[in-house]
Amino acid sequence: MAVNLKPPTPADLLPVKGVRLGVAEAGIRRSGRKDLLLIALAEGTRVAGVFTQNRFCAAPVQVAKEHLASGRATRALLVNTGNANAGTGKRGIGNARGSCEQAARLLGCDPREVLPFSTGVIMEPLPLDRIVAGLPACVAGLREDNWGRAAETIMTTDTVPKARSRRLGDGTAVTGIAKGAGMIHPDMATMLGFIATDAAVAQDALERLVADAAGSSFNCISVDGDTSTNDSFMLIATGAAGGPVIDNMRHPGYAGLREAVLEVSQGLAQAIVRDGEGATKFITVLVEKGKDEAECRNVAYAIAHSPLVKTAFFASDPNLGRLLAAIGNSGVRDLDVNRVELYLDDVQVARDGGRAPGYREEDGRRVMEKSEITVRVVLGRGPAAVTVWTCDLSHEYVTINAEYRT
Amino acid sequence: MAVNLKPPTPADLLPVKGVRLGVAEAGIRRSGRKDLLLIALAEGTRVAGVFTQNRFCAAPVQVAKEHLASGRATRALLVNTGNANAGTGKRGIGNARGSCEQAARLLGCDPREVLPFSTGVIMEPLPLDRIVAGLPACVAGLREDNWGRAAETIMTTDTVPKARSRRLGDGTAVTGIAKGAGMIHPDMATMLGFIATDAAVAQDALERLVADAAGSSFNCISVDGDTSTNDSFMLIATGAAGGPVIDNMRHPGYAGLREAVLEVSQGLAQAIVRDGEGATKFITVLVEKGKDEAECRNVAYAIAHSPLVKTAFFASDPNLGRLLAAIGNSGVRDLDVNRVELYLDDVQVARDGGRAPGYREEDGRRVMEKSEITVRVVLGRGPAAVTVWTCDLSHEYVTINAEYRT
Repeated sequence: MAVNLKPPTPADLLPVKGVRLGVAEAGIRRSGRKDLLLIALAEGTRVAGVFTQNRFCAAPVQVAKEHLASGRATRALLVNTGNANAGTGKRGIGNARGSCEQAARLLGCDPREVLPFSTGVIMEPLPLDRIVAGLPACVAGLREDNWGRAAETIMTTDTVPKARSRRLGDGTAVTGIAKGAGMIHPDMATMLGFIATDAAVAQDALERLVADAAGSSFNCISVDGDTSTNDSFMLIATGAAGGPVIDNMRHPGYAGLREAVLEVSQGLAQAIVRDGEGATKFITVLVEKGKDEAECRNVAYAIAHSPLVKTAFFASDPNLGRLLAAIGNSGVRDLDVNRVELYLDDVQVARDGGRAPGYREEDGRRVMEKSEITVRVVLGRGPAAVTVWTCDLSHEYVTINAEYRT
Repeated sequence: MAVNLKPPTPADLLPVKGVRLGVAEAGIRRSGRKDLLLIALAEGTRVAGVFTQNRFCAAPVQVAKEHLASGRATRALLVNTGNANAGTGKRGIGNARGSCEQAARLLGCDPREVLPFSTGVIMEPLPLDRIVAGLPACVAGLREDNWGRAAETIMTTDTVPKARSRRLGDGTAVTGIAKGAGMIHPDMATMLGFIATDAAVAQDALERLVADAAGSSFNCISVDGDTSTNDSFMLIATGAAGGPVIDNMRHPGYAGLREAVLEVSQGLAQAIVRDGEGATKFITVLVEKGKDEAECRNVAYAIAHSPLVKTAFFASDPNLGRLLAAIGNSGVRDLDVNRVELYLDDVQVARDGGRAPGYREEDGRRVMEKSEITVRVVLGRGPAAVTVWTCDLSHEYVTINAEYRT
């Protein structure tokens, strides 16, 4: 039950020149569902990405990093669901390379020009034979207007496909897809996010832009505080629109493209939270007037990760002392709680180390019953601010994760 | 539904000379249940304690710290449930002081010789009048053999009262009680734990001993990763048995007393986990061969706090890749995952960066179906080891915390 999240309609999703997408039912974990996506890219396409910081990072993450580091252009991204190819040792690396080789053979390019991505169960061997068998169907089905089916193909516990598009004034298209609903506390990126533009962007500027976008979108969300082994967020610039190459941040095209990419990436990141496993509420946590962003982030995530806070939201119970406990538990050791103010939407809940004099339980309850709530914490220590998006913790989260493999 | 945890029988609980306990139904939050406990102590009793590191630490914690810092002996501990007196600002401090003054008047001592403790809902004003009205019944009922009723009185979401006793060879008694089931990730102490002995212990040695005991018991448990505003663990030495004063760690009586105090405190800490909100499994997480205890602790709590790991335990599902993801997510940035070994009880699950060659799903399932499970992680980096106790995450946890105030 996603929170105020509708699936994109095909008409919403702009084709991006130089990007063709093909999908297949490869039966990787279960038969009868799309689970393999090939994104074929025009010659000369540049790709930059950010990846999980989990030390058990998946084999495809390791191989994708290697292939990007080769300095070559990228000709294809290959994505499978149903199996994460993580915690699979050397054999997992071999399987990730094998899938790139097969895709490269079919597309007539170098295996290092293919980037592999996987999501699904951890510590199970990747069925390479099924991927190999499914690839010809992906290639046969490559189309520019296939973003909607691509978004469906990368879903796992997602209940709604996630895709966004934006057209710039000069005609440049920015379209992205993402997947993720649980194991969501991205550390540099989310489960899987792919955004493409037909603008031409030089590698340095593209790397800057993907880090910037991740920092304001996928790195600002949490469903359950667990960082996946497979997080990857890739930004693709085909240059196929024929515009000038955006080769640095002061280039006149950079600001507009940045705005579009941020909007698409924030939309996708928020869609992941709205579709968070078992989510019934979409919570924006805004922490203001901190000394620096790091401490604001600590406070925001202490709230976003607290099971007690999250169950109170699920219950629409203004048991708001739990928010104070989470703030006090955020590791900001010299925090003066007497300067902290807490708001729920427009309702002042706490100040001077305790409940605000004007606070009434019914005001708190009125806000808690909404499906979209902003928690605002004013630390009173400095100029920094951070926004984080999260969801509540419901019975459905436990059900989904207790039964994930059944 | 506590995991293999029985209530103590009155015969199990040794009276401690110099300690008398009285309880009352003060109606602090609800009527018809014991919610006020007075522990009266013989003259000359020394008390040492460790308290929560939560910055929103409760008013009674602040007042208890002040009173201990006055250097006086302690004559009484006053404990209420139903209201945490936390996030209550200056008025909360006044209420905590007021309750000490009233107890001191009835006992004929200085208010600074009374230590206050509260547990319950955060950010609600403490009903001081009800505590004042309930205190005479506590005083009238003071008895040495009242530990069982005291353990019942301090329960909140606990389903089983928690008490332990141990007699040393020389006749010294050590008896303790604790409460706690949720908001459990103690940082220096747990929700509330009180252990008393009739040994005579000097203040310095007592402070050393309480820190030592906390470090091996209450600081090694987690139910939900939330640190309470009210955590307090107090060690009481009345000296009423008449033995020699244990005035330093090399005193011949120290080692035996330490062993008894650690046994009681570990038993109480484990009882809190066994009675963790919604717990169906008791999980011991043992992390070995780390560089230092800090990194072992990070890995252990990354496992103990992961909602995905905890729901897999609830489901008895050997979805053990989630354990690898948690280990990789523990913040040990230079961890070589190829040296990590993972065991479930005696079953080797992973090594060399992936699933162990001999691992079979049915072996994992066999262990996962037990109610007591040991997760052992061998980091292969050094000599340090840490043990942490935790429980699973069930539907019942969500139900309890969604309905806590109803």
